[in-house]
Amino acid sequence: MPELRKDPVTGRWVIIGTERPRRPEDFQPALAPRSPGPCVLCEGRESETPPELYAARATDGRVNAPGWRVRVVPNKFPSLRIEGEIERRGHGVYDLMNGVGAHELVIESPRHDDTLASLPVSAIEEIVHSYQERMLDLRRDVRFRSIVVFKNVRSSTTVALDHPHTHVLATPAVPPDIAAELVQARSYFDYRERCLFCDILQQETDEDSRVALALDHVVGLVPFAARSPFETWLLPRRHLAGFEHVTALERRDLARALKTLAQRIERLLPGAPLGFVLHSAPFGDEHAPSYHWHVEVTPAAAVSGFQPEGSGFAVNPLPPEDAARFLRAAE
Amino acid sequence: MPELRKDPVTGRWVIIGTERPRRPEDFQPALAPRSPGPCVLCEGRESETPPELYAARATDGRVNAPGWRVRVVPNKFPSLRIEGEIERRGHGVYDLMNGVGAHELVIESPRHDDTLASLPVSAIEEIVHSYQERMLDLRRDVRFRSIVVFKNVRSSTTVALDHPHTHVLATPAVPPDIAAELVQARSYFDYRERCLFCDILQQETDEDSRVALALDHVVGLVPFAARSPFETWLLPRRHLAGFEHVTALERRDLARALKTLAQRIERLLPGAPLGFVLHSAPFGDEHAPSYHWHVEVTPAAAVSGFQPEGSGFAVNPLPPEDAARFLRAAE
Repeated sequence: MPELRKDPVTGRWVIIGTERPRRPEDFQPALAPRSPGPCVLCEGRESETPPELYAARATDGRVNAPGWRVRVVPNKFPSLRIEGEIERRGHGVYDLMNGVGAHELVIESPRHDDTLASLPVSAIEEIVHSYQERMLDLRRDVRFRSIVVFKNVRSSTTVALDHPHTHVLATPAVPPDIAAELVQARSYFDYRERCLFCDILQQETDEDSRVALALDHVVGLVPFAARSPFETWLLPRRHLAGFEHVTALERRDLARALKTLAQRIERLLPGAPLGFVLHSAPFGDEHAPSYHWHVEVTPAAAVSGFQPEGSGFAVNPLPPEDAARFLRAAE
Repeated sequence: MPELRKDPVTGRWVIIGTERPRRPEDFQPALAPRSPGPCVLCEGRESETPPELYAARATDGRVNAPGWRVRVVPNKFPSLRIEGEIERRGHGVYDLMNGVGAHELVIESPRHDDTLASLPVSAIEEIVHSYQERMLDLRRDVRFRSIVVFKNVRSSTTVALDHPHTHVLATPAVPPDIAAELVQARSYFDYRERCLFCDILQQETDEDSRVALALDHVVGLVPFAARSPFETWLLPRRHLAGFEHVTALERRDLARALKTLAQRIERLLPGAPLGFVLHSAPFGDEHAPSYHWHVEVTPAAAVSGFQPEGSGFAVNPLPPEDAARFLRAAE
């Protein structure tokens, strides 16, 4: 019998197939051919990107020149514009504002073929640190309400996009997926005076059946109502709504968790790209008792079955408990 | 300057590109090759599907035999099971129920190569009528809370799926996308004592700039915060929450609107498949003053630009006013 499981964080029901045993290789995705380097994001081609906003490099290094380990630049083709006023307004029944925002690229490595699985933990720590630094800088711009950091899974036609990178998007509106979580989490807190995510962490570490990895400061778990095979959430054990206030130890364990997860996914689904989204509270709510920053990781996975598009139901043929078991066994 | 527009129905912000003029052909999708007929859904192969639940056929016709115009059968590979108790329950912080539900296929034509653009209005009327008949039948099963009728866009590996068909999914939980709308619409109604959709219809027919087609009983409009190029909503002018109570005149105009829209999309994006979702109130709420049934039509359209996956933002490069203009000009 399949199950309908409700994700308490998003408030969405997911159809979990529990019919027959599945193997990890059943979900191996077809891989788009990678474009070979070097590309404009590679070391040595710094003049082909907009000037850098942040970089991790030797203290005597020159800006916009080789020698960096992580580099953040404005996106050359931004979906939002950095200049201008927000002008929030209504139009009859509708609401709108100008498309003002920052759209930046975190170039995760000077080398075209690195991945989270191949990079050392110290390098991933610097990537994670760059997210925090960009948030701390961008929050000073009072026009922005929220920042979302994410790595897209889908392959693109743009050559540059095969170079390992993350997007940083600062927006005057809270991203819809995070806004939905804030509502659910606040409603849970209003009823119980407890953080939903802290309660999830408590129950998951007690039950252990969906825990994929457990570090001192960060836990990786397959969510109870995972929407796709091997979806994994990385949560800090310490309650904190805004990622910009993480400690060095938390950054270190987040980097460890990302690398560990990437390595295990690489064993289960060789070559499958990983997407992730960093969910963090909007500015002004960074100390909210009801929200808890976390990273939702979604490996590209092939799901051959039916998906009821447009209904909002996801069908996940791999029970989260099986996914967690596979992930632990892939250590 | 791009715009951030909020969809009052889903509550989600959409990034609308308004940078440069676009032509319809910029959105022509790459087309997957169609699998040629005949397939198991074609006329003459009735014994290869589960026995029919409903059919439009000559009164002296035999069931499960040729001679039908529309035929509804259980899905051979259902994502939910029709037998069993729901058993709603909690598990710590989580909620779940058994995956009980009905999953049916509406076979829209006995012929493999028909489309909504090629079928006569009278045939589409019978398809639309079959949705209503299945809803009226399935609502007698007290285990079901909601029905969603939809046509998937994405091509599949299954041969049968190139035959024109619609899915009918009856579920014990309200589909997440409809649940989100119900919350938004109820909140709007609680504040104003007016139906959000009725207000949208009023404003849109007054402004006219996003109206794609207007019939006596049904209006087709490109939503203010359309998530993709040529997304179009078909709304009945008369307030009604539950589709199962539509009149013959409304069915007729819905069929006309579907055909007209399909023909115009065929002119703008030749060969592009159309997906749609019928949004109807859950059983028990079919006379709610705050909800209004409608059909959301989404043509497959290529969007070459960046999409911020996992943030919940959609980026639509075609302003809805331009899309409506193209759709009107394609008459």
